Amino acid sequence: MTTNKNISNISIGIILFPNLTQLDFTGPYEVFSKLPNTQVYLLSETLDPIRSERGLTFLPDTTFAKAPDFDVLVVPGGPGVNLKLEDSQFLHFVRTRGEKARYVTSVCTGSFILAAAGLLQGYRATTHWRSLDLLQELGVQVVSERVVIDRNRITGGGVTSGIDFALAIAAELFGDAIAQEVQLAIEYNPQPPFQSGSPQTAPPDVVTRVEASTQNMYNTRRQIIQKIKSEFKTTVF
Amino acid sequence: MTTNKNISNISIGIILFPNLTQLDFTGPYEVFSKLPNTQVYLLSETLDPIRSERGLTFLPDTTFAKAPDFDVLVVPGGPGVNLKLEDSQFLHFVRTRGEKARYVTSVCTGSFILAAAGLLQGYRATTHWRSLDLLQELGVQVVSERVVIDRNRITGGGVTSGIDFALAIAAELFGDAIAQEVQLAIEYNPQPPFQSGSPQTAPPDVVTRVEASTQNMYNTRRQIIQKIKSEFKTTVF
Repeated sequence: MTTNKNISNISIGIILFPNLTQLDFTGPYEVFSKLPNTQVYLLSETLDPIRSERGLTFLPDTTFAKAPDFDVLVVPGGPGVNLKLEDSQFLHFVRTRGEKARYVTSVCTGSFILAAAGLLQGYRATTHWRSLDLLQELGVQVVSERVVIDRNRITGGGVTSGIDFALAIAAELFGDAIAQEVQLAIEYNPQPPFQSGSPQTAPPDVVTRVEASTQNMYNTRRQIIQKIKSEFKTTVF
Repeated sequence: MTTNKNISNISIGIILFPNLTQLDFTGPYEVFSKLPNTQVYLLSETLDPIRSERGLTFLPDTTFAKAPDFDVLVVPGGPGVNLKLEDSQFLHFVRTRGEKARYVTSVCTGSFILAAAGLLQGYRATTHWRSLDLLQELGVQVVSERVVIDRNRITGGGVTSGIDFALAIAAELFGDAIAQEVQLAIEYNPQPPFQSGSPQTAPPDVVTRVEASTQNMYNTRRQIIQKIKSEFKTTVF
């Protein structure tokens, strides 16, 4: 259990973009920032403040142009993913940095960005439950699990899965004991007040309402997926 | 179960200060920002960016001077709490806004700020496991639970408890069904990779190491508590 791998000077790069879901990366950030000899970078195309989906605004600490190579590349998700799926410059950066990283990872719908960058085809991976079927359209072997590790691809499910995901990465990098210390430090002893965290356990009317309220976002994403999928056939794949 | 209380125009004020633990409030923010007819304010003494404990930096959206009254006042915790426990102007703001709020709440060691502001004496409340005994010194009826509701005081344990805490507040404000929708939207179906989230379940050597690494912070906090406790006897209580 106590397999401290003593890897030093780990660099973790989290890619920020407008309208992301902030908890997709702030959960993992809390875990990563407590790891020994680890530098976490929040990188964006510019140093402009990044406004997340509901308003919370962050300052990136480096740009794509100035960012070092990373041991772990992390892509969060959120509504802002849709716009990035057709941003070839953004996807080029993700692809080139992903190809050099030891671990290529995402939380929530960040997996769509990895897939659009050509980094998830032929891998088992997951995403937010609402978008699982769409991810399959991009040639990903989609599985409905909270954290999926397939070789050096590590993907988490929706939003809060980022905490489980980051603890799994901590264990990969530093061994179980260090991951357990971080879990204790952040008192991650979850006790959700309801059993409503997945469509399999939530009351059916709750699932119906959440599906309805996210239908427009889903439709838009589906259209974009259909479009980039046909482009992929002549280029990436 | 479906008790939508139809309360409209809820205002939630989250108090930011330097060196806070960012997940203490970014977890709750994700929940609160998805509630209907709810405005979430991130307030600070000035509009200067707030650097959290490990570097992640946020922009507040209003100042203490300009902030409206709040239905729910939320105080996160972190190492930065220590400095605020002796900041009389800061504590005066918390006390006066807290006295007017419908719910006075905290996550993690934010409960020390509520206590130092005179808002928790005689109430059942909780805090991060590492500081439970110190909170008792301030006249709080300390309990080791993940989320504690005593009349209109709602307090959460360490860091990640903020998600459970915020869902409990969502249910208080809007009924169970709305809270369940938010839980599903953020896929809060936790599956921690280890059973290390509390000192009762973590391996003993893991507890020992986390206690050792936080001993300096604990000692400093204990000294401050002893000091403000003696001042309290002649003033607040």
